[in-house]
Amino acid sequence: MNLPGSQPARQQPTSGVAAAAAGSAAAAPAGSPEAAQATEQVGGQSGGRSLDPHLRRYAQRAAGMRASEVRALFAVASRPEVVSLAGGMPNLAALPLDTLATDVAELVATEGQSVLQYGSAHGLPALREQICDVMALEGISAHADDVVVTVGSQMALDMVTRVFCDPGDVVLAEAPSYVGALSTFSAYQAEVVHVTMDDEGLQPEALRQALDTLAGQGRRVKFLYTIPNFHNPGGVTLAVRRRAEILDICARHGVLVIEDNPYGLLGFSDQTYPALRSMEADNVVYLGSFSKTFASGLRVGWALAPHAVREKLVLATESATLCPPAFNQAIVSRYLARYDWQGQIKQFRAAYRERRDAMLAALDQHLPPGCSWTKPDGGFYVWLTVPEGLDTKAMLPRAVTQRVAYVPGTAFYAAGFGSRQMRLSYCYPTPERIREGVRRLASALEAEQELLHTFGARSAGGGRPEVAGGQSPSPDTA
Amino acid sequence: MNLPGSQPARQQPTSGVAAAAAGSAAAAPAGSPEAAQATEQVGGQSGGRSLDPHLRRYAQRAAGMRASEVRALFAVASRPEVVSLAGGMPNLAALPLDTLATDVAELVATEGQSVLQYGSAHGLPALREQICDVMALEGISAHADDVVVTVGSQMALDMVTRVFCDPGDVVLAEAPSYVGALSTFSAYQAEVVHVTMDDEGLQPEALRQALDTLAGQGRRVKFLYTIPNFHNPGGVTLAVRRRAEILDICARHGVLVIEDNPYGLLGFSDQTYPALRSMEADNVVYLGSFSKTFASGLRVGWALAPHAVREKLVLATESATLCPPAFNQAIVSRYLARYDWQGQIKQFRAAYRERRDAMLAALDQHLPPGCSWTKPDGGFYVWLTVPEGLDTKAMLPRAVTQRVAYVPGTAFYAAGFGSRQMRLSYCYPTPERIREGVRRLASALEAEQELLHTFGARSAGGGRPEVAGGQSPSPDTA
Repeated sequence: MNLPGSQPARQQPTSGVAAAAAGSAAAAPAGSPEAAQATEQVGGQSGGRSLDPHLRRYAQRAAGMRASEVRALFAVASRPEVVSLAGGMPNLAALPLDTLATDVAELVATEGQSVLQYGSAHGLPALREQICDVMALEGISAHADDVVVTVGSQMALDMVTRVFCDPGDVVLAEAPSYVGALSTFSAYQAEVVHVTMDDEGLQPEALRQALDTLAGQGRRVKFLYTIPNFHNPGGVTLAVRRRAEILDICARHGVLVIEDNPYGLLGFSDQTYPALRSMEADNVVYLGSFSKTFASGLRVGWALAPHAVREKLVLATESATLCPPAFNQAIVSRYLARYDWQGQIKQFRAAYRERRDAMLAALDQHLPPGCSWTKPDGGFYVWLTVPEGLDTKAMLPRAVTQRVAYVPGTAFYAAGFGSRQMRLSYCYPTPERIREGVRRLASALEAEQELLHTFGARSAGGGRPEVAGGQSPSPDTA
Repeated sequence: MNLPGSQPARQQPTSGVAAAAAGSAAAAPAGSPEAAQATEQVGGQSGGRSLDPHLRRYAQRAAGMRASEVRALFAVASRPEVVSLAGGMPNLAALPLDTLATDVAELVATEGQSVLQYGSAHGLPALREQICDVMALEGISAHADDVVVTVGSQMALDMVTRVFCDPGDVVLAEAPSYVGALSTFSAYQAEVVHVTMDDEGLQPEALRQALDTLAGQGRRVKFLYTIPNFHNPGGVTLAVRRRAEILDICARHGVLVIEDNPYGLLGFSDQTYPALRSMEADNVVYLGSFSKTFASGLRVGWALAPHAVREKLVLATESATLCPPAFNQAIVSRYLARYDWQGQIKQFRAAYRERRDAMLAALDQHLPPGCSWTKPDGGFYVWLTVPEGLDTKAMLPRAVTQRVAYVPGTAFYAAGFGSRQMRLSYCYPTPERIREGVRRLASALEAEQELLHTFGARSAGGGRPEVAGGQSPSPDTA
């Protein structure tokens, strides 16, 4: 049963499958790819198609490298007067910076000769052991040999795609899916087919149908990319009773499962869901991260992969960066060894739960009729559906004028969906700011409905917020 | 004029061009790619072809992802009784660890909330400004907007290749070239064509011939990848009078120049060569690194690119890692702002010069007749040619038995060359260890000649050192 707010399912073709070149939805509303980039340029230089002397030299994949709408948004949303419900930046306020400072200093002074030196592409052995302990909280039993440390789990995803995807290969992903994953799949010219999700996560029946349809078309499907827990941007969690079924469907179709789980330990009910990897070791590559449970600026993530795949991943990471920073790995390892990191995660959970409560209460209180949204039990995000006739991308500049920002739903689809959705994040602002942001969003939506009533659908047209400066956080931290 | 030791030129076809799929030379001596990987496996698990259930799923590029001979070597060479002349690890002994520790602690305590947070894919603005100051030492005038910070310059190279190379595109590189670059080109299925080098670096005439030949074949050449200063592994420097000519040839053939310059500030004669980028801004992408001038374990490098290319690079890095670690960038920025970093580089130069002197003197003193080698004026490496009939890869296990290690020349070619060459590095061991290592190498070479004399060429066959443990430094730090 699709609950209110799980609108993406309704926007899918009835087959549950929508094949499209990944990333194309993130282009500028009109014009060449370079037109999109031009919006973020600094210093008045032009990057228009005719002025780029290198244009004919680029690889085919570069055609998909376009600045997303999220990027333009961020520069605006970072102004202090705007309440940003757009970013996915974790809240680090609870980190024990003073003791951490002392500890990092000791690391430099006593082990600087090794931790400031090149390391292995595979990752620090001690850290890989500790990562197994972290994953054990989700029921995973693994050997440290099969863990590959990466520069954030984004790099793990990039490496998995590098190892598996030829141009034209199909990747299945939830509808909607993580914007940074779509961008990686696009970089490798893989095509994304979205599979319907509801409030219990990915629908097994839709997955089965999609795989059957694709098999009938003779398409090569390389993997299912899924975020089972506290989905980004969906805010829903894959029901436990669906998990074995999803694994079974993929195994029977010979399709690998990429389980991306950055939020798994950030559940609000003190429940930790069993990882897909805990149920099936041979057909799952698990991606983890310390960005949300410790510090995103260290960029330490990992992949846990079947042994043969792990070997390919190590070789791929070697050619990509030689090795992840030894220093950062040593800091995380020391943090895990010396701090009550599980206690710290409890603090993070409490902080995010308070913010989630503030957002859900404010949405209930302020949003006009016809809106619906998911009720996340963990993680960072609420997925909001606005009344028919409104367009979340078109209205964004006007919302920013009202000093509130969000990410339009279209960013989370390979193409053509999400125009009535938006992602709201409650991870970073204070509860008071969240309430204020939702109030502003509500009045922006009401103004939009007023426009719609007066002038008809989408009369105000599209448009993007102007970008004042070139220094904006990565859109994929959205 | 080719001086003794610049043998790679003589091994080239007379056209100066040898096209071959990149990376294939780095495979195991015989058997499947998986056989090569099996040598580095840990824990007794098998990775043989028939046992990998994922084999049919891999992307085509994964076929080129093989453990190089250098990897196996490293595990052996890291035993304390072996003098490793193989690794490319910088010598960090001169770093002021105590003051650095204090400084990093202050950074965490006072700016932890921002430096432990996500940053931009473009890189920290303050650091990008400082990078322009560093590059100014080589005559480069650049705007910080056009600098992209990466996870080491290896990632910069990976991103450049991602933006420019489709499968089958040709990349020109010196003969020999950096092993890590060959591995990146292979990951993108670009084909490497080597261009002859002599003691004055890349030969303009060979470059011209190569480009004409390739044009005649209708091949798409995307860029020339060159290491002009203190070449890895060649140990030679591109003559200043050749630089404008090389740039001119590339411009006239519509071929971009990728200038990789990790060692440029590590010259021994206090001379700094003018960067190619200082002579030509629009057709050069410059790659720089703090790995050799500060600390490799922080993994901070950069690309300086023409504006339109820079935009593509930022988008590419975003999909690869979201952003480079903000923390590491802040450390480098603080180091550049607060330390006498140019004085520190002088100390590094002095330390490496002393080691270079020790190696050259020991080679003169101990090596048997028929050997020749380059005389580096900076950087980390000597390129040694052994007498005819000897095979540096085949003799490596026996050299390791004599407790000395090096990298066989074949690692530095896309295919089929370098069997009479080896790379010796003097960067890491003490002068005393270097002298001892060269003595051992000399006796290994003499024993090899004895074998040759007794049994004929290559009678002892190939073979690889056995690998005892899975934790070895990255081969590409070689």
